[in-house]
Amino acid sequence: MVVKSIIKLIKSLQQKKHRIEHQLFVVEGRKSVNELLNSSFELYGLYVTEDLEEEYQSHQANLVSAKELSQMSSLKTPSGVLAVFHIPDQKELNKDEWILALDDISDPGNLGTIIRLCDWFGIKQLYCSNHTVDCYNPKTLQATMGSISRVELFYGDLDSFLSKTDLPVYGSFMDGASIYQSKLPEKGILIMGNEANGIGDSISSKVSHRISIPTFGNSKTESLNVAMATSILLSELRRDSEET
Amino acid sequence: MVVKSIIKLIKSLQQKKHRIEHQLFVVEGRKSVNELLNSSFELYGLYVTEDLEEEYQSHQANLVSAKELSQMSSLKTPSGVLAVFHIPDQKELNKDEWILALDDISDPGNLGTIIRLCDWFGIKQLYCSNHTVDCYNPKTLQATMGSISRVELFYGDLDSFLSKTDLPVYGSFMDGASIYQSKLPEKGILIMGNEANGIGDSISSKVSHRISIPTFGNSKTESLNVAMATSILLSELRRDSEET
Repeated sequence: MVVKSIIKLIKSLQQKKHRIEHQLFVVEGRKSVNELLNSSFELYGLYVTEDLEEEYQSHQANLVSAKELSQMSSLKTPSGVLAVFHIPDQKELNKDEWILALDDISDPGNLGTIIRLCDWFGIKQLYCSNHTVDCYNPKTLQATMGSISRVELFYGDLDSFLSKTDLPVYGSFMDGASIYQSKLPEKGILIMGNEANGIGDSISSKVSHRISIPTFGNSKTESLNVAMATSILLSELRRDSEET
Repeated sequence: MVVKSIIKLIKSLQQKKHRIEHQLFVVEGRKSVNELLNSSFELYGLYVTEDLEEEYQSHQANLVSAKELSQMSSLKTPSGVLAVFHIPDQKELNKDEWILALDDISDPGNLGTIIRLCDWFGIKQLYCSNHTVDCYNPKTLQATMGSISRVELFYGDLDSFLSKTDLPVYGSFMDGASIYQSKLPEKGILIMGNEANGIGDSISSKVSHRISIPTFGNSKTESLNVAMATSILLSELRRDSEET
């Protein structure tokens, strides 16, 4: 049994403005909840239905009815466990490693997939422009499969961040140099652009190395989806570091 | 104005059994429809609302009301144009090129994305096991963005196909040799496995080269999504051919 005000609070966290107001976010599903419980994220509250009560006993889970859970949940079929965590404070960027930067990625699923890719390829820092979709969006969290606990996220003014950096700045364009011919350094910034518009003009002017994934044969495909392109570029980046 | 039986027929094509029965499939959205109109696919019928009538005049489009279109459509918000095409006859496989093979891919969006990747990387042949999701599924077609007109699809018994081939057979596994260290030949078969179970045992036994995408750092991500893994492996395959 939980009080109605808690249900109302949790439900409100589906919206970004309420997540910012309360500095809280919601994670659902056993896999994601378990990954975050075993991370440095600070738990605010854990809510489980009866069948999962024993499993989460050690975390002082609150027992809720299926009806209460569905009132809190953003899923059509809630999974039996829902956790609320505190949004962590933004850390300092470490300039000694690769930083992936996103210029206004708008699709929550794409952002989630990109976070998962960062985790796979050991990219620990993801810098998102202020207009990039919120990483605590339920659909983003769903797509990260818990990877968000292992990637540091930064939101800020990408333009001014790039103005101040002395790292080499790589950007993914349709007309850049072939990624297969480019030797990537040990650290730098790699920028991926918005799904529809690519990298904006102002950001483009700060890119020192324009790179591209070549197409083969007679393909008329206009572009790769940004998550696909990110997977290929991060793979290339790690390939180069494995060879050195 | 179209007759009710046509609306009923088109609606029925959302289901695989009716697509097989009639050997027809439906494409929606201007981009995809246009790509297929300019391909070798044979048109059965084109249906447009008034605002797009002029654009499709040369294709003898049938004018339909918004209500009729929404009755035919699988989309919540139909795009104003819907086309029905004949399912083409299956061609002969060309053994002189790379063939991507899928072992029971079940998600329509993943299959669509993989078709789009084949198009990008000039892989002209995609062999799908009989239990792979149907390529004429509306969600698959949506994700291909028209690329299906440039990739030949084959459905069949993957196991027996592999038994008869003398091409080198590569398979993507968690524990294979690093793709970064493997030199891929000019032709062969590359197998990607089911989202949850990977490549099945019987198919595995026919793989001559087990390959893998290495993870970096302390990542605990269990696996890459199959579309991500495919994008990286196809990129590697083309990278090797560009170097030779």
